[in-house]
Amino acid sequence: MSAIAKISQAEALAAFSDEQALLPVVVQDEASKEVLMLAYLNREALRLTLETSRGTYFSRSRNEIWVKGESSGHRQWVRSVAFDCDRDAFLFLIHQEGVACHTGERSCFHNSVL
Amino acid sequence: MSAIAKISQAEALAAFSDEQALLPVVVQDEASKEVLMLAYLNREALRLTLETSRGTYFSRSRNEIWVKGESSGHRQWVRSVAFDCDRDAFLFLIHQEGVACHTGERSCFHNSVL
Repeated sequence: MSAIAKISQAEALAAFSDEQALLPVVVQDEASKEVLMLAYLNREALRLTLETSRGTYFSRSRNEIWVKGESSGHRQWVRSVAFDCDRDAFLFLIHQEGVACHTGERSCFHNSVL
Repeated sequence: MSAIAKISQAEALAAFSDEQALLPVVVQDEASKEVLMLAYLNREALRLTLETSRGTYFSRSRNEIWVKGESSGHRQWVRSVAFDCDRDAFLFLIHQEGVACHTGERSCFHNSVL
């Protein structure tokens, strides 16, 4: 594992250049370490995630804030938030209720390239 | 773990709408399951990765194909490639020589948000 630097929530929120800016977030199961999905955050989605611990993203297809599991019940509880060296990607370690993928698979990465 | 569907390399390469299109790739250590970095692929970078098994990306800052470890020696050997349900993100499971991060940390995600 890597040495961990601590950064403040204000610093993390400042990574977004404006209210419209989107940054990718890798969502990983805290227990199994399986990568469940790749989603996008805007500043408000990160703020809500930090405030509520509910995995909250920005849906590029619906163009709106999206609280994961709000309709499906497949909620995500965010246990830790990390930020990369370039300050342009996040990593959430989460507890997943049910499954992450809308297809019913546990992970969205269920297509293996031969 | 999820059920795995098999898709062809041609299908994966067809995910890129044109030669300029970029898609994110999550790079995860095969053994430790640590998420090491988030990078970007264009069609050529994915084609080279599949052909050589060397982690090969598109550098957005240098605007060119980037064979990981070419200057640092910190090569990545790609053991498996997966594709997500929306066909707009990839996951590489790799063997990392040395460290993934240019700062000397093993993972790029070494900033913890308090």
